[in-house]
Amino acid sequence: MTPVPLARIIVEPLVRAALVEDLGRAGDLTTDAIVPAGLAARAALVARETGVVAGLDVAKLAFELIDPDIAVRVELEDGAMTAPGDVIARVSGPARGILTAERTALNFLGHLSGIASATASIVAAVLGTKAKIVCTRKTTPGLRAVVKYAVRAGGGANHRFGLDDAILIKDNHIAIAGGIAEALRRARAAAGHLVKIEVEIDNLDQLKEALGEAADAVLLDNMSLETLAEAVAIVAGRAMTEASGRVTPQSAPAIAATGVDLISVGWLTHSAPVLDIGLDFED
Amino acid sequence: MTPVPLARIIVEPLVRAALVEDLGRAGDLTTDAIVPAGLAARAALVARETGVVAGLDVAKLAFELIDPDIAVRVELEDGAMTAPGDVIARVSGPARGILTAERTALNFLGHLSGIASATASIVAAVLGTKAKIVCTRKTTPGLRAVVKYAVRAGGGANHRFGLDDAILIKDNHIAIAGGIAEALRRARAAAGHLVKIEVEIDNLDQLKEALGEAADAVLLDNMSLETLAEAVAIVAGRAMTEASGRVTPQSAPAIAATGVDLISVGWLTHSAPVLDIGLDFED
Amino acid sequence: MTPVPLARIIVEPLVRAALVEDLGRAGDLTTDAIVPAGLAARAALVARETGVVAGLDVAKLAFELIDPDIAVRVELEDGAMTAPGDVIARVSGPARGILTAERTALNFLGHLSGIASATASIVAAVLGTKAKIVCTRKTTPGLRAVVKYAVRAGGGANHRFGLDDAILIKDNHIAIAGGIAEALRRARAAAGHLVKIEVEIDNLDQLKEALGEAADAVLLDNMSLETLAEAVAIVAGRAMTEASGRVTPQSAPAIAATGVDLISVGWLTHSAPVLDIGLDFED
Amino acid sequence: MTPVPLARIIVEPLVRAALVEDLGRAGDLTTDAIVPAGLAARAALVARETGVVAGLDVAKLAFELIDPDIAVRVELEDGAMTAPGDVIARVSGPARGILTAERTALNFLGHLSGIASATASIVAAVLGTKAKIVCTRKTTPGLRAVVKYAVRAGGGANHRFGLDDAILIKDNHIAIAGGIAEALRRARAAAGHLVKIEVEIDNLDQLKEALGEAADAVLLDNMSLETLAEAVAIVAGRAMTEASGRVTPQSAPAIAATGVDLISVGWLTHSAPVLDIGLDFED
Amino acid sequence: MTPVPLARIIVEPLVRAALVEDLGRAGDLTTDAIVPAGLAARAALVARETGVVAGLDVAKLAFELIDPDIAVRVELEDGAMTAPGDVIARVSGPARGILTAERTALNFLGHLSGIASATASIVAAVLGTKAKIVCTRKTTPGLRAVVKYAVRAGGGANHRFGLDDAILIKDNHIAIAGGIAEALRRARAAAGHLVKIEVEIDNLDQLKEALGEAADAVLLDNMSLETLAEAVAIVAGRAMTEASGRVTPQSAPAIAATGVDLISVGWLTHSAPVLDIGLDFED
Amino acid sequence: MTPVPLARIIVEPLVRAALVEDLGRAGDLTTDAIVPAGLAARAALVARETGVVAGLDVAKLAFELIDPDIAVRVELEDGAMTAPGDVIARVSGPARGILTAERTALNFLGHLSGIASATASIVAAVLGTKAKIVCTRKTTPGLRAVVKYAVRAGGGANHRFGLDDAILIKDNHIAIAGGIAEALRRARAAAGHLVKIEVEIDNLDQLKEALGEAADAVLLDNMSLETLAEAVAIVAGRAMTEASGRVTPQSAPAIAATGVDLISVGWLTHSAPVLDIGLDFED
Repeated sequence: MTPVPLARIIVEPLVRAALVEDLGRAGDLTTDAIVPAGLAARAALVARETGVVAGLDVAKLAFELIDPDIAVRVELEDGAMTAPGDVIARVSGPARGILTAERTALNFLGHLSGIASATASIVAAVLGTKAKIVCTRKTTPGLRAVVKYAVRAGGGANHRFGLDDAILIKDNHIAIAGGIAEALRRARAAAGHLVKIEVEIDNLDQLKEALGEAADAVLLDNMSLETLAEAVAIVAGRAMTEASGRVTPQSAPAIAATGVDLISVGWLTHSAPVLDIGLDFED
Repeated sequence: MTPVPLARIIVEPLVRAALVEDLGRAGDLTTDAIVPAGLAARAALVARETGVVAGLDVAKLAFELIDPDIAVRVELEDGAMTAPGDVIARVSGPARGILTAERTALNFLGHLSGIASATASIVAAVLGTKAKIVCTRKTTPGLRAVVKYAVRAGGGANHRFGLDDAILIKDNHIAIAGGIAEALRRARAAAGHLVKIEVEIDNLDQLKEALGEAADAVLLDNMSLETLAEAVAIVAGRAMTEASGRVTPQSAPAIAATGVDLISVGWLTHSAPVLDIGLDFED
Repeated sequence: MTPVPLARIIVEPLVRAALVEDLGRAGDLTTDAIVPAGLAARAALVARETGVVAGLDVAKLAFELIDPDIAVRVELEDGAMTAPGDVIARVSGPARGILTAERTALNFLGHLSGIASATASIVAAVLGTKAKIVCTRKTTPGLRAVVKYAVRAGGGANHRFGLDDAILIKDNHIAIAGGIAEALRRARAAAGHLVKIEVEIDNLDQLKEALGEAADAVLLDNMSLETLAEAVAIVAGRAMTEASGRVTPQSAPAIAATGVDLISVGWLTHSAPVLDIGLDFED
Repeated sequence: MTPVPLARIIVEPLVRAALVEDLGRAGDLTTDAIVPAGLAARAALVARETGVVAGLDVAKLAFELIDPDIAVRVELEDGAMTAPGDVIARVSGPARGILTAERTALNFLGHLSGIASATASIVAAVLGTKAKIVCTRKTTPGLRAVVKYAVRAGGGANHRFGLDDAILIKDNHIAIAGGIAEALRRARAAAGHLVKIEVEIDNLDQLKEALGEAADAVLLDNMSLETLAEAVAIVAGRAMTEASGRVTPQSAPAIAATGVDLISVGWLTHSAPVLDIGLDFED
Repeated sequence: MTPVPLARIIVEPLVRAALVEDLGRAGDLTTDAIVPAGLAARAALVARETGVVAGLDVAKLAFELIDPDIAVRVELEDGAMTAPGDVIARVSGPARGILTAERTALNFLGHLSGIASATASIVAAVLGTKAKIVCTRKTTPGLRAVVKYAVRAGGGANHRFGLDDAILIKDNHIAIAGGIAEALRRARAAAGHLVKIEVEIDNLDQLKEALGEAADAVLLDNMSLETLAEAVAIVAGRAMTEASGRVTPQSAPAIAATGVDLISVGWLTHSAPVLDIGLDFED
Repeated sequence: MTPVPLARIIVEPLVRAALVEDLGRAGDLTTDAIVPAGLAARAALVARETGVVAGLDVAKLAFELIDPDIAVRVELEDGAMTAPGDVIARVSGPARGILTAERTALNFLGHLSGIASATASIVAAVLGTKAKIVCTRKTTPGLRAVVKYAVRAGGGANHRFGLDDAILIKDNHIAIAGGIAEALRRARAAAGHLVKIEVEIDNLDQLKEALGEAADAVLLDNMSLETLAEAVAIVAGRAMTEASGRVTPQSAPAIAATGVDLISVGWLTHSAPVLDIGLDFED
């Protein structure tokens, strides 16, 4: 899954902020002290484990913003599988700049590749079913655009990007409205014509109420496999069905087998471990 | 471990950016459509699992920046242990604002508490030894200040905050300098009088070379327990000794038993899963 | 139509930037030279013409950011009709601050009220029909959030807020894809489950093609009234129908009478004249 | 009137903000879904009506910031007249980037050209008189630098750019000071030696008072043509004379005929409709 | 000379940036380690030498932004003379915050008071003459607004604030134009009606040329006292006369005695030493 | 002393802000009015006095950000000595851009070179001793990174960059802790392993107490030469010794002769006059 690259205008401020965060007021004390000004070097970004790479443009930009004389040649594309030892990209140019940008580049690349890899592991688990794996708004603050991109790189799809691009009615909204039907009516009255409405469902009675108000999608939260299957049967294609609740690569196939359209997984973006990628200098 | 709170002037820009990231241009479509303007609500931030909380000031600020009429009463302090069901804080005020800020508050609180909890688990594993658990610069871009704070809340200590506040000579620097002694001499010549110098060591010969140049600290990377113990004996208090390399709560006690001063753990800040915390509305 | 207020966290940066733009490096030379420091004053924001007010929170914030001792008491709400001479709000406090903030407050208030008034004039023209008046992305750069809010205050509805919250397939996309059906298929394959898809239609053949691919909405661009009516009949409720193309209060009723769901009007946000509002000092 | 171009350092932040405002967190969903990565395209910015173009540098920058591989060849210069069908500029390069930047480029270009066109229409109306057409501080928040530039492109001149670059004493200042003479004395005492002082005049007695204090300019607000002419005679070249008050292309010639030096027109910058400019793809 | 306070909206971003610059990512390590959380303290800002204070609002804001519980009571006003030992302000509240903000507050206060003091020393030297002391654009980057304010606090007047608020024709402009008269004509043709024009003069022939084109002010650069006096006589009130060139408190009286209107002094803003002010804790 | 260049990512925002501060909303009125668009020019940055240059990259960037067609060829390097008349750099390209950027470039270059020159004068005074000259945190707000760089260019060394990169215990901290030993213990307990601790010493008893707690450095504040020498003898290499207190080029040699390791000088960064550098146009 090679996703469409993010516009540089979105990514660049994040990379600049991360570099400034690492360089502080004094810059790279170690490299400035030890590495001569004119020295050139060649290095490779190398995968240390199996996974899916994401964030190559971001890592590339980290090197280029530190020194435009650094050249980054990408060997894999975002969305590609890695095996231990695979060269992901080659970096060449002033040694000082390569060392100074290294950690920032790897922090982005490892984090985003970790998310892509986690996504891919669940996507693989439901292969052959119609279920799409989707992410949530449970993302690390400040990084939503790139984190959602990493999910796409891993073969997943994106849920809402924020509070403002779709309506998702949750239990507290339903309680305040006094019921699902009333909540949906209020939402429908306020929603723009290009805004879809999804509603969280706790039981099958609520599901029928939601279908009665023509919800675009229903979020079936923490239901048993049996109930999920029954819900899918009741919906019968009249709305998108999304299952959620502590999904793992192990549990995902059975959930997908219930026939749901979507399985949302919070931990892809809030708890996926980094993919281990290193920078190896070459002679 | 209740750490000294971060200055609001450092934290506030992060929280503002995260809220704006979630609200986008149109704000919280769902809440605005469904929840009446005047409605007040009460809710609790509740731990769903065992861990250590961190980031309460940050979460509090998220609510207050959305609506200054929201009051947040903290029930636990950063650094406190949580059990499932523990109320961490109580939130009261306009229901709209509480729902709009909820996800941003929880994203910070869950992420930082996850780091604190991971830290605490390793700190507990080495209790009774002199080893301190320290973090690295492998942090999520943009969040270094709060992430390092979370490590402190978990009972850990901080390594460098950036490239600019200490010298850490790594393998590539050593290779470029042509040896540890030369790298240390260059570093010493350039370093300010309040800048400490640590050097990465791969074997005991390098260690002796480093001690000969009076390194302040030595990073013993990926060594066997035997070699670590031997290294500690060789150092004999002349430098701080830091062990690193895929440390887990299981492996940490044996590492600590070698007598090292510090054990650095990258995954605390790059791969710790969030601590599960929810917001429950109350009647 | 009193819309839900925009979050201050979205509006405040715009107001700060506008004030700084007006004050420059030296501040209000005239007021600082002439008006004594301690002098208090009372003034009223007064409508000079008939229209619909929008942006009171924004104007209020302009005064308060210049001097928190200025009190603004709102007499009308956003969405209210004004007649010439109506007092919209009363401002009291330090005379210096009132004079310094005046122009910025009025620039926002006049611009947003002008948009609300233009919207209301078209909304009134289609009263009794099912047609909703919607805006476009043709907005003054930097002000989209508040401009879209002003449309709501005028009784209109919002179209997309940006390129990222819905899919709108236009003629150039269709040409590149090689046809409407292929364009819709590509869009459907890429779209998240909460993303609606609208497609621009130039003739009735294209319309049928779009319905065959289950477009959520069709944009009927620059069609005659007869063709519009025919299109609405063909659609028969299977998609939202949106008419566009140089709509005026005069032409709107006939367009609405064709039965379209939506009428989009670009000039609401790119060419509406300001509503004339002044600040009158009172004794 | 080809004005001196604005420094890119002033314009670039505005264009970046406008692009980010339109792309949001997810970018151009439509184009990313439908348009292939490698596809090149050619397009023309075409005037749909008669007017004066302004903002070509700004529009060009919008395309280039989205993708530096897009080339923009300007065919007309800012300040040039357009007829319907005139090609203003040609754009070539990656189709994706052209489509993504299109709306932002056109929003700037249409808005600024609208202001230039409105200005030119009044400038033409007073041709052959000595009267200059000037703008006011009634500008869309955030865009003052470019909006004032557009006035210059239309052949107009600029009044103050902000509260800080000249003194303009208005009725409220006069009332607070207790009279025009006292207000002028206070202003003179505080003003730097390169700061000019203008004062608003409601009647001829005030005018004489102002001349007695050597005002640099007098703002003759909402006066009849007879009174304007009389005022000009009284001033007799001792100060610049500025007429204001709901000036239109129809009323401007008679006002200019009174002999005033300047005619200020608020609606040029707060209410001018956009100039209709489109982007046409070419084969 | 108590100048009108700068708007907080202008000053606050400077103070926030300075505090963040000093606190970095980890905050005040020393204070956080040593000072207990609840401890209150009282301290005084005390002048260590004779001078003129400026920047009290700025210093006050530094304390308040670190901790709103810190109260700052101002004992002197900006523009007041200090003697060694004078208490300028009293600060009370949380000891941690006082210590953390101390350096930033003093850096602003010392710098601005240094400028005010230098200004006052020259102002005093020309007392009784009509000469005003004015500053230049030779200011520390980023601080122009506050630095110009400090000049006012010292009894001086401000020259241009930037390249955009007045025209100052210098030798290079004259050379390019081919002469003073042509340069003035070009400037007059381009200048707005509220923009004054000053021209640099090297000799009396140039002076006559400038007067022939009705320059508003002439900058008499590096002239002998005799030439200055002759220039003043030639001008005879037809333009403002400004003397410049390495002015000191010693040389200023004689320059003022030539009858010039203004004496501009670059070193007030680029080379004035700080006024020594300290923070003394009280029991 | 040619220091390692600062990363452009750190310097660029400062230069952009300074240029925008000078250009305001209208740009360079004078140059835009007088200098033709196509005119090319050549100029030289010329030292008017003896000193040490610093900030050439910064000045270069000012020209390039205004117009990338301006070429700056550096003739001296940062850290080089200047004699009156020395050409520091040559600038060629569009005359408009050169004139517009001139003041900002010179403001940076003069300020930083002034600091480097002051530093060099003290460094020269202690030549042949082991004493290093170090700066303090008494820097102009907003410019710490470049100001500290200028100290390095002058041959000095840097003290702390902020409150967060080392611990410096001052008199107020000691008083609050109840003594030096307790303050040091608290600091040691909180400090990271790469954080050094310095403590301010007023007398020799305190010194012994500090050595007893293994302070890394002692700040000997305002001591007589005799006491300094005695302190150095007592320390006997167990800590770095830093002397401070109104150091001048005259007093520095005797201080250095006491054997201290470091002499800190506040006025290098808060009160050094600019180095006089001008821009001369060439035919």
